[in-house]
Amino acid sequence: MGKRIILALLAGLILSSVVSAEETKSVRATRKWVQQNGHVILQDFTRLLSMPNVAANRKDIRKNAEYISNLFQKRGFDMQLLELEEANPIVYGEYKVPGAIRTLCFYVHYDGQPVDPTKWTHGPFNPVLYSGAMDKGGKEIALPGKGDKIDPEWRIYGRSAGDDKAPIITILNAVDALQSSKIGFTSNIKLFFEGEEEAGSTNLKAHLLKHKDLLDDIDIWLFCDGPVHQSRRPQLVFGVRGVTGMEVTVYGATRALHSGHYGNWAPVPGQMLARLIASMKNEDGKVLIDNFYDTVEPLSEFERLELAKIPNVDIQLKNELGLAFTEGEGRTINERLLLPSLTIKGLASGNVGKKARNVIPNTATTAIGVRLVKGNDPEDMLDRVESHIRKQGYHIVYTEPDMETRLKYRKIAKVDRRRSGYIASRTSMQEPNAKAIINAVQNFVEDELILMPALGGSLPLYLFTDMLKKPAIIVPVANHDNNQHAANENLRIANLWYGIDLMGVIMTMPR
Amino acid sequence: MGKRIILALLAGLILSSVVSAEETKSVRATRKWVQQNGHVILQDFTRLLSMPNVAANRKDIRKNAEYISNLFQKRGFDMQLLELEEANPIVYGEYKVPGAIRTLCFYVHYDGQPVDPTKWTHGPFNPVLYSGAMDKGGKEIALPGKGDKIDPEWRIYGRSAGDDKAPIITILNAVDALQSSKIGFTSNIKLFFEGEEEAGSTNLKAHLLKHKDLLDDIDIWLFCDGPVHQSRRPQLVFGVRGVTGMEVTVYGATRALHSGHYGNWAPVPGQMLARLIASMKNEDGKVLIDNFYDTVEPLSEFERLELAKIPNVDIQLKNELGLAFTEGEGRTINERLLLPSLTIKGLASGNVGKKARNVIPNTATTAIGVRLVKGNDPEDMLDRVESHIRKQGYHIVYTEPDMETRLKYRKIAKVDRRRSGYIASRTSMQEPNAKAIINAVQNFVEDELILMPALGGSLPLYLFTDMLKKPAIIVPVANHDNNQHAANENLRIANLWYGIDLMGVIMTMPR
Repeated sequence: MGKRIILALLAGLILSSVVSAEETKSVRATRKWVQQNGHVILQDFTRLLSMPNVAANRKDIRKNAEYISNLFQKRGFDMQLLELEEANPIVYGEYKVPGAIRTLCFYVHYDGQPVDPTKWTHGPFNPVLYSGAMDKGGKEIALPGKGDKIDPEWRIYGRSAGDDKAPIITILNAVDALQSSKIGFTSNIKLFFEGEEEAGSTNLKAHLLKHKDLLDDIDIWLFCDGPVHQSRRPQLVFGVRGVTGMEVTVYGATRALHSGHYGNWAPVPGQMLARLIASMKNEDGKVLIDNFYDTVEPLSEFERLELAKIPNVDIQLKNELGLAFTEGEGRTINERLLLPSLTIKGLASGNVGKKARNVIPNTATTAIGVRLVKGNDPEDMLDRVESHIRKQGYHIVYTEPDMETRLKYRKIAKVDRRRSGYIASRTSMQEPNAKAIINAVQNFVEDELILMPALGGSLPLYLFTDMLKKPAIIVPVANHDNNQHAANENLRIANLWYGIDLMGVIMTMPR
Repeated sequence: MGKRIILALLAGLILSSVVSAEETKSVRATRKWVQQNGHVILQDFTRLLSMPNVAANRKDIRKNAEYISNLFQKRGFDMQLLELEEANPIVYGEYKVPGAIRTLCFYVHYDGQPVDPTKWTHGPFNPVLYSGAMDKGGKEIALPGKGDKIDPEWRIYGRSAGDDKAPIITILNAVDALQSSKIGFTSNIKLFFEGEEEAGSTNLKAHLLKHKDLLDDIDIWLFCDGPVHQSRRPQLVFGVRGVTGMEVTVYGATRALHSGHYGNWAPVPGQMLARLIASMKNEDGKVLIDNFYDTVEPLSEFERLELAKIPNVDIQLKNELGLAFTEGEGRTINERLLLPSLTIKGLASGNVGKKARNVIPNTATTAIGVRLVKGNDPEDMLDRVESHIRKQGYHIVYTEPDMETRLKYRKIAKVDRRRSGYIASRTSMQEPNAKAIINAVQNFVEDELILMPALGGSLPLYLFTDMLKKPAIIVPVANHDNNQHAANENLRIANLWYGIDLMGVIMTMPR
């Protein structure tokens, strides 16, 4: 077992029993609250998880919105549902405090991924407590009563347990804990809970534009979504990659040809496409498209230093995934995800397996995925891919080539750029409010806080950072092994407790 | 319109009204027979085509076998059905003549391709006469009566009209014509009509081995199957390519990975496979696998000369198929099909189009087709492909790789060689009986006879040439545009008349 894996396991224990020398007033308050009311918190969480919340079911969604809105209303928040035609409502709230240092806004989404109940042990909306991870021998147990000891390794199973109802319960209980200890917030607190994130956030931009006036005074957005680091160490994330892509189809004859009667004479689209794709990247994973890396905005010295401190999970991941090598070997996944990527998401030409026939197919198609980092423009990057295709001798078309075109050009590629995607987002770790959060969180966690410049995945964070021009930080709560998007989604209780401490610390952080 | 196309069109006319200076006695007899009995021939053909003959329907097939057997029995052939358990019978016949120069055997198959009646204008087993090709404005017409003029451009539509019942009617009427003119055969005539060619000839080898004694005295096999040349000029074909192939799967992680969280770090199977396929062939269509062309048995000087005389159909084909270039450009399709080929029949990895997802698929697979020429051994050729894959740094497995294998080897390719295929077949144009046939046919056709060293497609002719060690020539009758294997299969009447002349000439040819 590698040193790093041992560290990671220790980190798991640390997160569940963190007692820092710098323990603040707020942490004392949230811990006391959890100790006295843990059983009620689990009951409340269970109740919230039992409410079906698939974005397409408008009635269910509205019940969730009203229920959540009411919970915060009771605690003195000024709540409203922000409406937009044909959209699920945003649960919006404000809590203003006199002499506030800043206004911060918690983003959460209260909808969950669609469900296939047949794959769930207990059904997606029938939350059940387990003594540990179900796939590691955990057993179903009853909810605890008052005074019962609660093991932080317990897990609650149910849709949205990790993604993304846990933050709602943590914010709510942080508020309760601070109020019961009579500790005031240092910032104005806003809530912005989306109801269709898992349906693609198709109305998020319109919501933000329509309610811009309400949001103008927000100094920093806190995205309470996604999991903490695989090492179980707490982390803050300062950006995401953007995403774009295209489909490319190359052409042989107008119809599939008999591979005997024409093989060795007719052009073979699968062969042509293979040559084209091979020209795009070298064996080491470097993209060979001209200027592909030119617009990448480099990390600051501070971010570089933080990056170097992030636990190396490469060996663990390679072992888990059965990989004896990786692209750009010698550089960690943490570094590699800070560059734009080009991946073959799909290949199709004729058939393989039982359906394979003795033909030369008439086309071959690839779906190319491109992930973007700060500085990359989606359309500009696709232009570079197109230029590369042209450089390989292809005539590019955007619709099916007609006979005249076919007879004129030796090599024809159809490019489909319909899904144009969106840019990456990154907030500086040295932005003043970001710095305040880093300090506050670092002060209460025992282990070193992970500061991740950006996730490899994509979220439309640019709507906040580039459209609204506000800093935005991802503040995750859930365990990385929460089965997000799948059946038997769950939350580890230690992460729930961590989240309550975290939210309390953020609500009370100094300048 | 190119000169060659004009030639091709003229050739079409020639075939339908061939009157040679060298007209033989047999041709006089068959032409007279056709002139007097054309309407009966079309009735007989129609009756034969109305009998359903899909190989899987055993009862239908046996009715065909018995009906055909009876037709030849009546003409003095000694007929029997050769049986094999679980197989359709071979319609076998012999006609011995005193002082015969040789024994020749006509191979025909009396089963037809499976049918989808919904795609047929009149149903597959409801033969109908047309005044021309249906897709070129031909109209349905009644069968002619005695004395009615028959246009050789008429067509009969029905399953097996071209593939492969036409030769049965031509042989039958050649026999009738010669008998009515009291012209004797110069060779012993044997008939070997297969009943499951379109079902893959799975029992052909067993039939040949079981009945080897019956077949031992055959000097040459005549394969009456397939179409004449695209130029409509008559042709004899002396071989076919063999066929083999394999599927190759390359591996990434043990599961599909999120293209954001892992893209630019995890190996991309589609990219790896593209590189592997690109390494196999250059842009000009030359296979780059070591020694791929080494075992090709070269053509003789005679065959080379004949090859050079074959009409060049490349421009016509390129125009038809919408191709601005071909592999090995500068060399004709006729030449290119005399080399082994390597084609990508299928590519599959993840999905494209609406099903495309933001993942790095865990595998990518290609179905590779290999056509073989005389001298190539299927297993040996696949060994060469495997060696090439190994040379690209791959560890080859034959079953799914386990975790230990995955973690040990950087690049893993699974090779599936289950369909091992079979060798090519070629009969020398200078083999004495082959020469006799060439001379006889050349003498009666006006235009120059095309002597094709081998077809690009594959048939298990090696069973005759390499297993039974007998010469075998393909003697096609059908028009090339007969819609073989598809709906609205048809035969052009000119080709029927040509076939009757042809069979008569072969049955009466001198040494």
